Amino acid sequence: MHSKLSARLLAELLGTFVLVFGGCGSAVFAASVLTDDKAVNMGIGFVGVSLAFGLTVLTMAYAVGHISGGHFNPAVTLGAFLAGRIDAKSVLPYWITQLVAGIAAGGVLYAIASGKQGFSAAESGFATNGYGDLSPNGYSLVAVLIAETVLTAIFLYIILGSTDRRAPEGFAPIAIGLGLTLIHLVSIPISNTSVNPARSLGVAVYAGAEPLTQVWAFFVAPLLGAAIAGVTYKMFFPDEADTILER
Amino acid sequence: MHSKLSARLLAELLGTFVLVFGGCGSAVFAASVLTDDKAVNMGIGFVGVSLAFGLTVLTMAYAVGHISGGHFNPAVTLGAFLAGRIDAKSVLPYWITQLVAGIAAGGVLYAIASGKQGFSAAESGFATNGYGDLSPNGYSLVAVLIAETVLTAIFLYIILGSTDRRAPEGFAPIAIGLGLTLIHLVSIPISNTSVNPARSLGVAVYAGAEPLTQVWAFFVAPLLGAAIAGVTYKMFFPDEADTILER
Amino acid sequence: MHSKLSARLLAELLGTFVLVFGGCGSAVFAASVLTDDKAVNMGIGFVGVSLAFGLTVLTMAYAVGHISGGHFNPAVTLGAFLAGRIDAKSVLPYWITQLVAGIAAGGVLYAIASGKQGFSAAESGFATNGYGDLSPNGYSLVAVLIAETVLTAIFLYIILGSTDRRAPEGFAPIAIGLGLTLIHLVSIPISNTSVNPARSLGVAVYAGAEPLTQVWAFFVAPLLGAAIAGVTYKMFFPDEADTILER
Amino acid sequence: MHSKLSARLLAELLGTFVLVFGGCGSAVFAASVLTDDKAVNMGIGFVGVSLAFGLTVLTMAYAVGHISGGHFNPAVTLGAFLAGRIDAKSVLPYWITQLVAGIAAGGVLYAIASGKQGFSAAESGFATNGYGDLSPNGYSLVAVLIAETVLTAIFLYIILGSTDRRAPEGFAPIAIGLGLTLIHLVSIPISNTSVNPARSLGVAVYAGAEPLTQVWAFFVAPLLGAAIAGVTYKMFFPDEADTILER
Repeated sequence: MHSKLSARLLAELLGTFVLVFGGCGSAVFAASVLTDDKAVNMGIGFVGVSLAFGLTVLTMAYAVGHISGGHFNPAVTLGAFLAGRIDAKSVLPYWITQLVAGIAAGGVLYAIASGKQGFSAAESGFATNGYGDLSPNGYSLVAVLIAETVLTAIFLYIILGSTDRRAPEGFAPIAIGLGLTLIHLVSIPISNTSVNPARSLGVAVYAGAEPLTQVWAFFVAPLLGAAIAGVTYKMFFPDEADTILER
Repeated sequence: MHSKLSARLLAELLGTFVLVFGGCGSAVFAASVLTDDKAVNMGIGFVGVSLAFGLTVLTMAYAVGHISGGHFNPAVTLGAFLAGRIDAKSVLPYWITQLVAGIAAGGVLYAIASGKQGFSAAESGFATNGYGDLSPNGYSLVAVLIAETVLTAIFLYIILGSTDRRAPEGFAPIAIGLGLTLIHLVSIPISNTSVNPARSLGVAVYAGAEPLTQVWAFFVAPLLGAAIAGVTYKMFFPDEADTILER
Repeated sequence: MHSKLSARLLAELLGTFVLVFGGCGSAVFAASVLTDDKAVNMGIGFVGVSLAFGLTVLTMAYAVGHISGGHFNPAVTLGAFLAGRIDAKSVLPYWITQLVAGIAAGGVLYAIASGKQGFSAAESGFATNGYGDLSPNGYSLVAVLIAETVLTAIFLYIILGSTDRRAPEGFAPIAIGLGLTLIHLVSIPISNTSVNPARSLGVAVYAGAEPLTQVWAFFVAPLLGAAIAGVTYKMFFPDEADTILER
Repeated sequence: MHSKLSARLLAELLGTFVLVFGGCGSAVFAASVLTDDKAVNMGIGFVGVSLAFGLTVLTMAYAVGHISGGHFNPAVTLGAFLAGRIDAKSVLPYWITQLVAGIAAGGVLYAIASGKQGFSAAESGFATNGYGDLSPNGYSLVAVLIAETVLTAIFLYIILGSTDRRAPEGFAPIAIGLGLTLIHLVSIPISNTSVNPARSLGVAVYAGAEPLTQVWAFFVAPLLGAAIAGVTYKMFFPDEADTILER
């Protein structure tokens, strides 16, 4: 990672844009496409959305991970910082870039979705995250907070472990991307799956007032889970933790 | 890439044939296979078609990518040229080869599909791309043009980034192939997903007059998206852009 | 594998937790999410659950496999020992750690699942394994024992072969993880798929009396299958069997 | 490939057993598992069966491919021989081993399937291949022959290309396994997908008289397709064809 900060931020901008555009886009456009008699779903369902989110990270981590480290997620940046993988002065620029990219991706999604008659972001949900009444399958705030915290911690263990110098080189984007697929396979019905504040904010700003009032939960839980994993990974598996390293 | 042009064109012929035969074939034969009471779809749906398109590129890029670069797509060839990855005099032979291979693959698909009673390419759609009335889920021309342009640009960023000398070696076909899967997971309901003029033309010529009148859009948008990505990748991440390189 | 036993046990704890939390969690939360008219399943079905189980192992083997060998399963530890891959004094600590991690993961799943009104672990099955009346599709005890024994043996052949020094380096977690996906694609309807006593016990303790009375079968058959494979791999393909090696 | 012939045949026995047991087993046990009201399929459908077949080859090629070359298929052995990858005296022992392994796997599948009340191999189809009335979606003999020939040729191009010395090392099992997935995504509705005589014969012998009378087609077309690819690969891309090499 010897790239200049400007190139690294461009890489984070591009990668986070693809994450939100591709992941949320698959949910908005393709999750449910019912046949005329409404009995058969040709759409990709939750399994396809899970795959799409994972593949955004797998592909963009290979594409620009060698430039920026491939975070695409403020929680990942926090965990990487606490584990000693990036320096303190990169954190805020990464965060701002990721949030801006998420909102930009949500905007392009909104523009395309408006090209279908009858589209309403608020009515469709627009792939926003939520708890209680806004949970896809009716899970409580407490359940959502536990799930998002635990799953983000797992995500960070996968990231920190697979980019550890002792792990096989070059495979980390596969492990990390498919780790995000795994997380979605578990938790779309719970919270629509965030583990990423930039993904949550990026679509919430277009979907009416209600999802925005819940977006705090998808900042708190992912950042908490990432912090727990960042600190404990360094504590449990310390051999590699004393160096600044990303690959 | 030291192969002779004739071997490279044979590789592009083979790879583009597999892309159109496998990707469009999965849509034509297997997307929807309803049980007798029409209530259950045993077929592969949009998620299976997305996987099939991606796997055509993943597999053939490993098979012949070391010979031709594994474009299999006129838009990819344009983006690769603008990013300085191939020389100008290869562009036109690649384009012609890819278009011919797409039409040949469409023809073999047509021959097999005709082996089922009642088959009509025009009525079934024959995996053609379209907007407005021919969009699978009714998206407007503007929505289709935005989606195809943005998604082709993303595809090229994945290609150019994962084949960059700084990226892990050998993994590019995984990133590129699964990138095409991601793109389909988002946009089959919008345009049936092209991002590839050879794929669009290859089936349109067999499916009656209407799809052919729309095929221009699937030349314009993919080529535009690829050009934007080719030029901007070289501008944003310039370290590697001064060499002719494909792997 | 030069890590201290304490670090190795932490790695097994973490990996087995993720296996049970992610694999069983995908089944509990996401396998079936019916639309309001009950005709369309947006959930991930058996194919999504199969993918989730496999990805827990793929991801965690990249994350911590370089520390502990990435067993996450008492049957794998037995097979690895019999094939000469780990020393005798590690077996019991690995087993205890894996069983504890499975029960802990089941507990967190239970806590989250309780956040949805009307949840009952016993009524829902809670992703437990079973035969006869508790087999998802009504398979007999004998059929379940054959299937679990054969499939665990296959799993161990994949593990021992792909981590053999002659196999391509770094790819073993992909082969092993996707091998577990394959096993689930075959046998969820038969036994809900165990091949792993820690996975079976981890959820059975929360699901009422009946599944617990059947859990013995998911200790006996996987351990038997793993033992057969461990012994025969060493016998059939002996070149590498004389060394302690894990990667 | 310096293993003795006996070890290579054991590897082919094991790998072909897993291919037929896992691939056909996923179809027999898991393709369709309807809910009580018959409206929702929790089973894996054709997309899951396609994945299962591909993963048998991906996993076993990593497990024992370094011993035998990982053919698991008489057509692959023929194509590899014609392309100069294995010597003539291995062909017949490989063929016999593969056919025996397929029949053995079919037998274990039959034993497990019989553990469910009401099972009848002949009535269920038992994952056999067929044309005309036995084609899953009613395709004619000619369509089936074209499809099986073209798809086996594609399979061999993927195999020969990805194991070519110029291709990235270690990735061939991914390309080959997922290539088999791609082939199934296209052609399960046409012929239930063979491209492998050992797979066809292995289940046909248990499924009554009718499938056995059609099994010739799944020897002829795959062997023809493999021969075409083996000869033409050597002709088109000759740089590497003058050496005996498998990896």
